[in-house]
Amino acid sequence: MNHNPLSSTLPDTDRTRHRRLRDQGSLNRAELDAILNAGFTCHLGVVVDGHPMVVPTVYGNDGRNLYVHGSVASRSLVAAPEATVCVTVTHIDGLVLARSVFEHGVNYRSAMIYGVPRLVTDPEEKLEGLRCLTEQAAPSQWDHARRPNHKELAATTLLALSLEEASVKIRTGGPDDGDGPDAALGIWAGVLPLVSTWGEPEADPLLPADIEVPGHIGARGGTRLG
Amino acid sequence: MNHNPLSSTLPDTDRTRHRRLRDQGSLNRAELDAILNAGFTCHLGVVVDGHPMVVPTVYGNDGRNLYVHGSVASRSLVAAPEATVCVTVTHIDGLVLARSVFEHGVNYRSAMIYGVPRLVTDPEEKLEGLRCLTEQAAPSQWDHARRPNHKELAATTLLALSLEEASVKIRTGGPDDGDGPDAALGIWAGVLPLVSTWGEPEADPLLPADIEVPGHIGARGGTRLG
Repeated sequence: MNHNPLSSTLPDTDRTRHRRLRDQGSLNRAELDAILNAGFTCHLGVVVDGHPMVVPTVYGNDGRNLYVHGSVASRSLVAAPEATVCVTVTHIDGLVLARSVFEHGVNYRSAMIYGVPRLVTDPEEKLEGLRCLTEQAAPSQWDHARRPNHKELAATTLLALSLEEASVKIRTGGPDDGDGPDAALGIWAGVLPLVSTWGEPEADPLLPADIEVPGHIGARGGTRLG
Repeated sequence: MNHNPLSSTLPDTDRTRHRRLRDQGSLNRAELDAILNAGFTCHLGVVVDGHPMVVPTVYGNDGRNLYVHGSVASRSLVAAPEATVCVTVTHIDGLVLARSVFEHGVNYRSAMIYGVPRLVTDPEEKLEGLRCLTEQAAPSQWDHARRPNHKELAATTLLALSLEEASVKIRTGGPDDGDGPDAALGIWAGVLPLVSTWGEPEADPLLPADIEVPGHIGARGGTRLG
């Protein structure tokens, strides 16, 4: 495990360089961290038999590695440790409604991480990676729910992907045609925001009625994701 | 363009076959349509220089083809017409909080579409595809905003991906450990729903104050996506 601190700027490699929409690209590592910390699901891209496969899955982020586990896509994870993967985390923040269709767009924050993932085999590191992954989606559940036993740990594939090679793209703000010729058209323009919100917890029907919602879960109801 | 009706069941090919979590897989075309109709952004996976690249982008769905355009990722789209791509559309519906960490999961609806996309060059079809793509994200904007002119059309790359080869995965409901030994632990279990909601429209600061929000945009505020 590499314990050197990561650079505060993201590397400018051939894969991460922003060839288009350069103004939306960012080499700021703090923005990468913010995007990763704001979510818990990603799209994992792998090459299987020469074709791409994009699988939604959950992830954990400890600021150095992104962890994905093996319960969702055995084909992608079996192929992954031998080859480069691309993990993309995206938050959609709103629709940009311009005067012209051509200038319509989306406000978003997105991070793409490239690398050859490492299969985590050390039991202590595996447990710590699974803790990270669990806490990313469900903070405080690691100390609340029953932790994985040896059999469950053995049945889980955990991959660690270094955050060293990453690319961030962010778009914010209104449409770009407010000072062009289309502004004279008298067409409404602006942003329609999109927000992800946690609802109120719904108890498992099999749960005894006297088991109350714990505070760390109940407090999330009505709060915003991302 | 193939005008034969699509089969009501999805094909069971080597790529789309559900090898794991078979109970979450679906071969129902109506479910594919519902997932695609419920969203407007996807993750487009392509192979570039032998490695995968996963790019978030908007799409249109006309029930036969999925359309993606060229304003977001020229590298991925330049590579795409020669090779198989994978487009994944995912809706995250909630966190499944079980008694054990191992049984934690996510409620979601996801569609993966495989195919070699076709570059749309016919001007009429290109306009229709862009209409489809615009209306998917912003219903009624095609008739409200200024449509693309010849120059803008020429600057846009449009790809059509047939919906013939697709795979759907859906998970709903509560945790699975309510009738196992962990039920005796007395740990709360259930689902924390996640909902995407449109906010109230925010006018472009450059917009004259007398231009009111049109009904088709204003009506979306507070409504649910997906």
